[in-house]
This record gives sequence, structure tokens and C-alpha cells, in this order.
Amino acid sequence: MEEKKGLKNRGYTHSDVDERREAVEKFTGTGLENISKFSFDSEKASKNIENMIGATQIPLGFAGPVTIKGDHADGEFIVPLATTEGALIASISRGMSVINDSGGARVKVFQDGMTRAPVFRTDGIDHCTKVMEWIDSNIDLLSSIVDTTTNHGKLTSVESFPAGRNLFIRFTYGTGDAMGMNMATIATEAVCKTIETHTGAVMVSVSGNLCSDKKAAAINMIKGRGKLVIAEALIPKETVEKKLHTSTESIVETSVRKNLIGSSLSVTLGANAHAANMIAAIYIATGQDPAQVVSGSMTTTMCENMNEDLYISVRLPAVEVGTVGGGTRLPTQSEALSMIGCLGDEKAKKLAEIIAVTVLAGELSTISAQAAGHLGKAHQELGR
Amino acid sequence: MEEKKGLKNRGYTHSDVDERREAVEKFTGTGLENISKFSFDSEKASKNIENMIGATQIPLGFAGPVTIKGDHADGEFIVPLATTEGALIASISRGMSVINDSGGARVKVFQDGMTRAPVFRTDGIDHCTKVMEWIDSNIDLLSSIVDTTTNHGKLTSVESFPAGRNLFIRFTYGTGDAMGMNMATIATEAVCKTIETHTGAVMVSVSGNLCSDKKAAAINMIKGRGKLVIAEALIPKETVEKKLHTSTESIVETSVRKNLIGSSLSVTLGANAHAANMIAAIYIATGQDPAQVVSGSMTTTMCENMNEDLYISVRLPAVEVGTVGGGTRLPTQSEALSMIGCLGDEKAKKLAEIIAVTVLAGELSTISAQAAGHLGKAHQELGR
Amino acid sequence: MEEKKGLKNRGYTHSDVDERREAVEKFTGTGLENISKFSFDSEKASKNIENMIGATQIPLGFAGPVTIKGDHADGEFIVPLATTEGALIASISRGMSVINDSGGARVKVFQDGMTRAPVFRTDGIDHCTKVMEWIDSNIDLLSSIVDTTTNHGKLTSVESFPAGRNLFIRFTYGTGDAMGMNMATIATEAVCKTIETHTGAVMVSVSGNLCSDKKAAAINMIKGRGKLVIAEALIPKETVEKKLHTSTESIVETSVRKNLIGSSLSVTLGANAHAANMIAAIYIATGQDPAQVVSGSMTTTMCENMNEDLYISVRLPAVEVGTVGGGTRLPTQSEALSMIGCLGDEKAKKLAEIIAVTVLAGELSTISAQAAGHLGKAHQELGR
Amino acid sequence: MEEKKGLKNRGYTHSDVDERREAVEKFTGTGLENISKFSFDSEKASKNIENMIGATQIPLGFAGPVTIKGDHADGEFIVPLATTEGALIASISRGMSVINDSGGARVKVFQDGMTRAPVFRTDGIDHCTKVMEWIDSNIDLLSSIVDTTTNHGKLTSVESFPAGRNLFIRFTYGTGDAMGMNMATIATEAVCKTIETHTGAVMVSVSGNLCSDKKAAAINMIKGRGKLVIAEALIPKETVEKKLHTSTESIVETSVRKNLIGSSLSVTLGANAHAANMIAAIYIATGQDPAQVVSGSMTTTMCENMNEDLYISVRLPAVEVGTVGGGTRLPTQSEALSMIGCLGDEKAKKLAEIIAVTVLAGELSTISAQAAGHLGKAHQELGR
Repeated sequence: MEEKKGLKNRGYTHSDVDERREAVEKFTGTGLENISKFSFDSEKASKNIENMIGATQIPLGFAGPVTIKGDHADGEFIVPLATTEGALIASISRGMSVINDSGGARVKVFQDGMTRAPVFRTDGIDHCTKVMEWIDSNIDLLSSIVDTTTNHGKLTSVESFPAGRNLFIRFTYGTGDAMGMNMATIATEAVCKTIETHTGAVMVSVSGNLCSDKKAAAINMIKGRGKLVIAEALIPKETVEKKLHTSTESIVETSVRKNLIGSSLSVTLGANAHAANMIAAIYIATGQDPAQVVSGSMTTTMCENMNEDLYISVRLPAVEVGTVGGGTRLPTQSEALSMIGCLGDEKAKKLAEIIAVTVLAGELSTISAQAAGHLGKAHQELGR
Repeated sequence: MEEKKGLKNRGYTHSDVDERREAVEKFTGTGLENISKFSFDSEKASKNIENMIGATQIPLGFAGPVTIKGDHADGEFIVPLATTEGALIASISRGMSVINDSGGARVKVFQDGMTRAPVFRTDGIDHCTKVMEWIDSNIDLLSSIVDTTTNHGKLTSVESFPAGRNLFIRFTYGTGDAMGMNMATIATEAVCKTIETHTGAVMVSVSGNLCSDKKAAAINMIKGRGKLVIAEALIPKETVEKKLHTSTESIVETSVRKNLIGSSLSVTLGANAHAANMIAAIYIATGQDPAQVVSGSMTTTMCENMNEDLYISVRLPAVEVGTVGGGTRLPTQSEALSMIGCLGDEKAKKLAEIIAVTVLAGELSTISAQAAGHLGKAHQELGR
Repeated sequence: MEEKKGLKNRGYTHSDVDERREAVEKFTGTGLENISKFSFDSEKASKNIENMIGATQIPLGFAGPVTIKGDHADGEFIVPLATTEGALIASISRGMSVINDSGGARVKVFQDGMTRAPVFRTDGIDHCTKVMEWIDSNIDLLSSIVDTTTNHGKLTSVESFPAGRNLFIRFTYGTGDAMGMNMATIATEAVCKTIETHTGAVMVSVSGNLCSDKKAAAINMIKGRGKLVIAEALIPKETVEKKLHTSTESIVETSVRKNLIGSSLSVTLGANAHAANMIAAIYIATGQDPAQVVSGSMTTTMCENMNEDLYISVRLPAVEVGTVGGGTRLPTQSEALSMIGCLGDEKAKKLAEIIAVTVLAGELSTISAQAAGHLGKAHQELGR
Repeated sequence: MEEKKGLKNRGYTHSDVDERREAVEKFTGTGLENISKFSFDSEKASKNIENMIGATQIPLGFAGPVTIKGDHADGEFIVPLATTEGALIASISRGMSVINDSGGARVKVFQDGMTRAPVFRTDGIDHCTKVMEWIDSNIDLLSSIVDTTTNHGKLTSVESFPAGRNLFIRFTYGTGDAMGMNMATIATEAVCKTIETHTGAVMVSVSGNLCSDKKAAAINMIKGRGKLVIAEALIPKETVEKKLHTSTESIVETSVRKNLIGSSLSVTLGANAHAANMIAAIYIATGQDPAQVVSGSMTTTMCENMNEDLYISVRLPAVEVGTVGGGTRLPTQSEALSMIGCLGDEKAKKLAEIIAVTVLAGELSTISAQAAGHLGKAHQELGR
């Protein structure tokens, strides 16, 4: 059948895309006119997708400029945000404006490393012990195997978690400016083959969920994954009152009752208002993996009263981003990265810092809005 | 300054968008040519974004057709997926093909309701008690207040969580075919004003993080939020071996060591391989809120050996989706919803069922690939 | 062999105990003179232990009197505490003294019910649905079956958690003044037999870990188990300063940084300083099950500044205690219960209230000590 | 008033104890005859308790002998267990008997170290960074300060967790044969004073809840605390059937559905049947801190089918025990330690191994009983 041919087409040219889309239109009886309108060369997406039929268009806006004082991002930035949630950008912009009035936000990457943790089947405790000892004695060998699989990745640490016949090994890699998940997977598979050969342990899965990718895992909250970033700002009392229409005291109260106590009672990983919103909007705009928004949701937002001024900080334990590879190569995504000077090499930490400050701005604005009692009103007016 | 004018432009017309984008180009020294190419009327996005400067294009592909036997989705579906992760669609397609060969997937929505949980400040235990008693005695009044704020939302349950001077009230709403977060927020704010008036309790925040939106919260794992959906399939032994190139035994072993034991040791909410990937790709394609991918990450994937055949199921505790409102109104998103017959009224549960089966297919494929030992290889060949 | 005979002796008389102990002495080459000295009739412990060889003696002290304003405990109480941790009782006593100076502590039981949650194997989604429907339609039947197994227990709620072929049913019981775990288990087993007969579902385990007994489970934090109790006190500024040698501000700061932020970052269920200490000491003194200290550890302790005075509260989500049955029948345990007027019927809620206030006192004292910077000093002087 | 004098008596002699108890009897109107009957010199408990009025007597029994193949415990052991839960010892004994028939249990301590984690207040990110750098450069100094406070403790690692103005430092100590919590607290306070002096950071609390003591904290599940111990046994198919009256398959199914899936759905730290029971009974018998039963509850129990035989293992991430100090000095507790050859120096790891095997035995027996469907029956006959 003709539509089957279209659906089964595996090519990457524009006409392959068109043929597939037409087959889908026939199969589903749906016109996909807007989906057909994409501005980039479909062959450039050949490593990003299969069965391509067009593109989804997400409205792209910006927040800022915001003054950032990072080790890598230093200056004023206009942050690209792709979203369909009305009021989100307005809220972040408000937060950034307040941060600017307060002299900008300080931000720092405290840790950097991508992880992969295979699970091995062993014969039990004694075999686990031998495998662990073998690994400890052969770190250099394992590092050299990693080096054969990647030019950018470096093995930086190896941790063992034995559990009966299961042996989980958490490998951490420096991955340069790539987010590094695939690099880590490929390196780990190579390393595991060597471990299997020398120890007799059997790799059951290259990912044993102690990595842990795209899951809300305490191990990432505690040990960090990708970049662990912290941002902070000190908002003068007057600015809180004039621009946020509330008081430092009210914001701190909201932060404690909602973020800290509420998150504890609901047994939540992290404690924040809506960090995932900012993470999702930047990740989509800049070609990051949107499934890794999960890690961003584990942000801890902290507000305190410093002599009536408001000190606010956010801790993002696992910002898994890159400025090369993955979705960053696509045209609109590249342009968005360029907007913040984050395209290409030596930029990943800069990107992580900008992300953290954007989260800070969004948290500041939303917690203030909740403290001032007008969250629903904002949504009623700007969104729906 | 000219760029400031552009950056401050608050209009929604195409020329407003162009003016802002040009101002951003000047400010950042970056050309945004691809970002400028969007096919929809910017005024239609006026409730979805502020400061719009164009659109992000995400490659859109499809997986399927897949045979679904749901209470709402019944038939063969081609599922739209927006992603930049190479190999993802190929993997999901493989899973769907296996599901088809096995007669399709059964899926069911077990629960439906959107929540919002404000936190009140009371005077303490006795005041909490009085407020709780007042609420219990006035559910009809509260329901009628909800009705004044929405045509589609209905208050369906009210639960109290006192904690010292804090009183958290978790309101659950039926929200028709809207995802319903804003509807719930607006209704809750109205209800809270009445509670404040009658009881003297003070609403500190309309969201007290027992809702919990866009956070990895055990309360949602346990009680569900949005739609709680379960999907399952039974894959014959022969199909496992011929199409997945592994055995039921290996898949079950991988599932237990990785998903169950690994997730427990890393203290993860949920237990799955990469549910967030499928959730993110469908959410973006169909105009859902991508920050709610977080809830999807709490999926539990279970594999078991049934007389050598493979029984696999996924439990998604919190599928927060809609088929009206939000990003679903945008053109490419509407078209994607149309592809699966999910645009408009009476479709939200159908969408949730299709999502759950897509997650099932992706989980089946990836766990099998890990069981067969070739995850990295797939990424090396198809992605990067 | 002679010692084998002794070790295999299954009797309950004093001489049986002696014979076994002597056999153990021989086997281990250890004199057990102190263990031999117990003051109660060993036959009275026949339902509490097997292979009895004597008794462990735990030093028993007291804290208080403390002024309690509960719905069930109202007045001044001297609380029995069995412990070997130096400084613990001194610390609790200090807290109680401060509470007394502040007019006493208010306390209330907000919820009461013991749970047991079997897991069934079903054929999958459709079977789960049928079983759930059958149960919903036959609550009265199930209640009547419960009534055949117990005079004191009443079935109060039934909740279903389907997950693929697994169906977990969480039964909640009123259990009068017994802690009720065994009563709940026996009733649940009877109920499950009926469910099996009528639905074809197979009970895999009478406990499916959604109960959840003696485990740190979010489901208990959120839904409560046994008694959910909250206690509070308002400590005047002057008392804080004079008796606790610190300030309200310092205590609140310690509470926020340590209990709230620290517990969030370490991904802890609950947020407290050392609630388990007080729980353990009372449980052991009064014959409760010390393994249920686990639930006590999920206490949330909250401190706030009310016009310079200190408001402190504790939320204990799962106080699983009884005043009849179990260890309460033993002589020293009965006497300890008598000390607080909690022996026998209609006393279990009273006991729960006294426990919560004791936790409150211990938390107040320790957090204050940490705020004042002298925790280690206290241990150095009083303990070791 | 006379009773006030008694209640206020702070002495440690037997007559001081008697006077206090008589005062309590008067105050409460309760006779405390059994409580008065203790066999040890009250002055020996002077570091274990304040306000002593007597002793609680807990029935003490034993389970075993059990064959243990540990690095430290090697041979046959009779394990002392103090409990009031009928059927517990019978159940553990059954498990041990099965283990013996299978050749004994292998057990190993994989990690050893006690932690204390103060929280400091800093000025923010830059100050945190400086403090962390100072600490990294002065580990030798900090170690030498630790050495001034203890003869047995050694600083073994220092980890920093910055979070805004909060800086948590997790210190790990080797503590010889003491459980080491007080040793760690005292050493940490000394270290913190030096850190304060050199860096200007202010210690807010010597415990910042990243330690984390007596709380169910993921950080301890993941990183371990005290001794991380794993035990295993391989039970032949025939033994499973003859002595446990069920099949390997049933036990594995129960383990997966209950311990793994059930614990995941209830969001539980750890995954086991009733590990806390065994921990509590040994801890109380041997003078350990019963509040630390909490950590024991985070045990992971794993069962798998090895060619029809049953492989079972338990991972205890945080066995916080000692064989010197604390409650171990008391007479009945010392005798119980002697029973297993664990009194005094060089015995703490041996004790941890015996504990892990006892947990293994209890888990094996209870999971088997649940698999065979007769848990309630056991309680009905032996307990109540």
C-alpha cells in the first residue's frame, strides 16, 4: 500500500520528509500544513530524529536583560525561552528586573561530571569484592579504554555499590561541552566489556538506575549530576516592597511554609516553586534534552531575611546541558544559544550559570506573587 | 535607545514580534533568521507567551502505527513525537511493532483529577481544627464558589493536612478536557477567600506544595494527579526472541536489577528506564506543558515472566494533559493532536491512554535493548 | 547432647527458662547472671517471646512533670523513659520545664487507624478493575468478615492501588486500644480469602508494603498510620532567653537550616532533630513495639517567631501504640503505663498525646542546645 | 514538698534511685514494684541515664545457633534478642535453621565510618567557596584537632554541600569499636571552632541533618553510615520446599511484588519485610541505641532464583553499633554481647556481621511465611 511505503521510508531528504508526512496525512486523515513548514535542512536533523515529518513550532520569547555575575557568564543577558504557558515569561522578566535593580545575581558551577552506572550480575559477596578490587587496581586501564572511545570524555571517578549479587558501578566523566550522556554510555559499555573479561562479572544493563538519567533520584540530589550550580541575589527591602509589592517577611514566610514545610510533607525531591518551568523553557529553546527537566525539578530555593533585605538562592543539583551536539546543532536552537553567547566550545558552564540565574528570577517572581496573593490573577490576565 | 524600545514593545502583531526580534538581534549581535520563520499567527499565541520573537522548531517525527485497546483510544494510532534525541523514535517504533505483533496494548485511565493545595497560617492546633470543621461542613458552599469561576471545573474532593500553625488543604477538581492547572488555581483562590473570611485563617500561598505541580513528589506517586493510567501488553516468547533479540528471562532480570533494585538503591521516585523521554516528546508535539514531564518520570515499569511470555506494564501516576487550552491551540500542536484524533472536547482521557501506550513501547524497547546489550550501539549508529 | 536439649526446650515455666539459659551458658561459655534476674512470671510472657532465657534490664528514668493540655491527656504527667543514652532525659526534662513555664503544651490526635495492605496477583488491567469493582460493591460483606475475626477491630476504609498485574489494597481499621497490627493482619487474611474466592485474584502476600509497617514510607508520612498527632507550645521570649540561653531568632534559624533545608538536601522523610530518641525511650518503657520507632522518625518539627516568642510544633504522622496487648501486659511496662494513667482501655489516644508532647520537649531542648552551641558539651558531661 | 525533693534528687546511688522512685509513686499514685527490681549497680548507669527510678525488663530470648561465615564472625552463634513481639524469635530461628541446612550465611562489612555534618552560615556563594577551599587545604590541621579530642577516632573524609548561605560539611570518622556518635560530635565541635576562627563562617548547628542520625535519610542509604554490611545465603530448592513449605518461585514472586514494587509505590527508603524487628531486638539486647533502628529499616532484601535454588541477600546500609561505651557497659547487655563473643575491643565489625545475618534469617522466614500464606496464623498461635 502506498501509505505503507511512505510510512516505511527511512530517508532524510526534504522529499523523504514530505513523502512520510503525506503518508501520515493519508493514514490519519489529517492535514499537517503547519507541521510541514520548517526552515532547516532536514538532513541536518538526521542524527536527531527518525521518521521526521516536519517540525513543531514552539513560541519563542525572551526574558531580560539580566545582569549575571558568574565565573563564566559575566554581563547582561537576554535569555531565550520557548513556552506555551502564558505569564511565565512576564514573571521571569519581572524577577530579572528586580535582580538587576539589586545589582545582578552571583552564580557559580560547583561541580561538573556526567554519570553512567551499569549493573553487573556477580556470584555474590565474594565475587563483588573481587570485582571491586580489580576495578580499584585498574583505574588507569579503564581510563585508557575510555580514551579510545572519545576525544572529549575523561573518566574522573568510579564508585561501587554492591548489593547481593548485584554490583552497581557509578562512573563519572568529564564531557567537555557536550551534555555527555551518549559519550558516557559508549565509554561505559567499552569499560564494562573489559571488566567482564577480567572478572567474570556479567553486565546486565549499561544503566542500572544509579546513574540516574531522567529520573527523580535522590542520588543526583545528593551527589550532583552534570553541573551542580548555585545562584543568589540580595534584594533590598525597598525593591521588594516597590517592585514585588510585598515584604521580605512575607516572602520568607511563603518560602518556609510552602517550599520547605510543604515539600517535606509531600515528600518531594527538592523544594521550589516552579523551577521546572524555567528549565523546560530554556532547554527547549537551546536544544537541550527536555526529559532532563526532571533533574531541574529537584532545585532547592531558599529565602532569608538579611536585615530586612531579601536574600534568595537556588541550588540546582543536576543541570545536564551541552553547547555542542544533540539538539544544539539545529538552526533555531543554535541561534538561541548564540543570543546568550553559548554556542560551541567552552560554553557549557556559561550556559549552566545562565540557566541557574533564570531559575532564580522565576522563583523570586513566583514566590513573591504567591506571597502577595495574586498568582491566579496573573494567569487570568495573561494566560488562561 | 532604539533597542530598548523594541525590547519593551508589548504588542502581539507580527510586526511587533519582528520589532522585538530585531531589537534582540541588535542587543545580542546575533542573527535570528530561523527563529523568525514561523507559520502561525502570532496573535494566536497571545495567551501562550510574552515577548515573543519567533519560534523554536523541534523536529517532529512519528512512531507507529500502534494498536491500542483503551476505553477511549481504540484502534491504530500514529503517534507524533517532537525530539532531538537520535534513536528515540526508532526505539519507540520498535516497541510498537512488537506490541502490534502481540495483539496490541491494553490501557485504562483509573483516576482523573487536578489538584491545588494552598497553605494557610492559623493560630495553631485549635484553629486548624475549627477551620477543618468549617470546611467539612461547607463543602457545598465551596463547590458553588468553584462553579462561579469555571464552566468546566468541578470540586471533587477536599483533604486537610494540619501541621502546627500550617494548614494545607488539597483540593481536587474534575477539569474536563483541560489540563486544568490554571482553572484549579483560580477556583482555589476564590474558595480560599471564603475560607479566610469565615475562619480567620490566612492563605499564605495558593500553592503549598502538596499539590504538587512540576515537582517530583511522593504525594502524586501515591494519590495520583491528573490522570492515573496503566498500560500493559503480553509479548509472546517467540516475538521476544525474534524481534527483540533477547529472552523473556533476560528482560525480567534487567527490569528487576535495574528498574526495581537500582531505583530503590538510588532512592528514586518511580522505577523505569526512560519514561520521561516519551512523555517529553509527546508533550512537546501536542502542546502540553513540558515542565510536567517531571510527573511522567515517576512511572513504574514492571516486567514479568508468564509461561515464558513477557508481560510488561507501566503505571503513570500523574499524566497532566489536556486537549483544549494551553499550547494545544497552536497550529502545529493542533495538527499533532488531530493525527491521533485528540483535538478538542472529550479527548483528554484518550490522549492519556495513547501517551501511556507510547511509554510502554519505549520502555519495552529500551529495556530489551539493555537486556540484549546494545544500547550504546544504537546511539552510536542513529544518534551521536 | 545435653545443651541441645536445653536449647530445644519449648516450655514457659521459670525452670524451662533456667534450663535454656544454662544451655546457652554452656554453649557460649558465658555466665548470664544478670540476665537471669527478672521479677516477672515467665509464663506471662508466653505470648511475647519464644526461647526466653531471662530479661534485659534497661535503666528507667523519668522526665517531667509536664503540663499537657490534650483532648485525652489533661494535667501534669511524669513520663517514664527507658534509655541508655546519657543526657537524653536531662534534655527532655529541660524542655518540659520550659514548656511548663510557658503554660503547657497543647496536643491533639487528628486521625486514628491501623493499616494492612496485601498484594494480589491478577490477570492484568481488566481483572484488577473487576476486583476493585467487586470490593467496592461488597464493603459490607468485608466488614462483616472482619467482625468475625475481632471484637475490637472495625474496617474503616479500603483503598485500591492497581499496578499492572499487581493489585494492592490498603485496609484501614479502628483497633480500639490495641496497637492493632496483628488484629489487622488476621482480619485482612480473612478478608483476602473471600476476595480470592469471589474474584479469582490470588493473594501473594498479606503485606504488600503499602501498609507499611516498620519501614520509612512516604505513604505513612502522607496518609498517617496509627495515630496522627500534633503538639505545640508557645515559649515566651524571656523564657527562651533565660532558660534556653539562646534567642527565638537563633532557634528558628537552626530549625530552618538544619531541620528543613538540611533534611531536604539529605532527602529525609520528616524533618526533626532527634524525635526517634524520645519515641524509643517511651516505647521501650511502656511495652510498645520498638521497631515502630521508625515511623516516629518521620516527625516534622517546626519553629517560628511569633512576636519574638517561640512557637514550636511537632507533627507525628504515625504513632503506632496501644495500651492493651503486646508488651503492655508485662509488669514493668504496665507500671510505666500506670505512671501516666495509660494502662488499659480508653487510653491509647491519651498515650499518643503524651508521646507527642515528650517529643516536643525533646525537640525544643535539643534544637535550643544546638542553637546555643553546646550539644557536644552536654554529652561530654552527662554521657560519654 | 517531699515529693519535689525526691523528684529533684540528682544522685546516682541506689538509695537516690529509691527516693526518686518513691517520689514518683507518690506523685502518680502508682506502685512501681517491678521497676524497682534491677540487679545492677545504679552508679554504673550514671553515664547512661538521669532521674533513674529503676529498670524496664524486656524478655530476652535467643535464636540459633546459626552458622556465620563472616570476615569477623566465623562459626556458630546463638543470638540474644530482647522483644515483646510473639512469634518473632520463632520466625528468626526458623530462618536460621534453614540457613544452617544450607551451609550457613556469608557476610561482609563493606564500609565503616561514623558521620557528623554541621551546618554553617556564610555570606553566600563566594564565602562558601573560600571556606571549602580553606578546609580542603587544611585537612591535616583538622585531623590533628580531632586527635586532641579522642584517642579512638580518626577523621577519614570531609565532604562539602554548599546551598546558598548554608554550608553543610559531612565529616566521617573511624571510631574504633565505639558506635561513635558522641565521639564524632565532640570532635566536630572542636573542628568547627577552628573553621569558624579561620574563615568567619558561623556554625549554626553541629548537626545539619546531612549526618544524618536517627532519621530515614537517603544520604545514609546511598553513602552508608556506621557499617555497611551485606549478608547472603543460598537455600537449596529441597530445603525451601521441605522446611519453608513453599517454592523458590513463590518466594521470589513475593519478594518482587511486595518488597520491590510495593516499596517503590509507597515511596519507601529501603525494601524489606521487617528488618527493623531484628535490628530492634538485637540492639536492645546488646545495649545499642534503639533510636538507630531507623537506619536498619532501610535494609534492601533481595531474592532470586538460581537454578531453582533460592539466593537471598540483605544490604544494611547503616549499622550504627559499638561494642564499647554507651549501653554496652550495663550488665545484662554485656552478658548478651558475651554470648556472641562481641564484648569489648575489636568486636564491632563482628557484631555488625552477626546482626546482618540475623536480619537475613528474619527476612527469609517472614517472606517465606507470606509466600506460603500463613503470617496471620503464626501470630494467632504464638502471639496475639
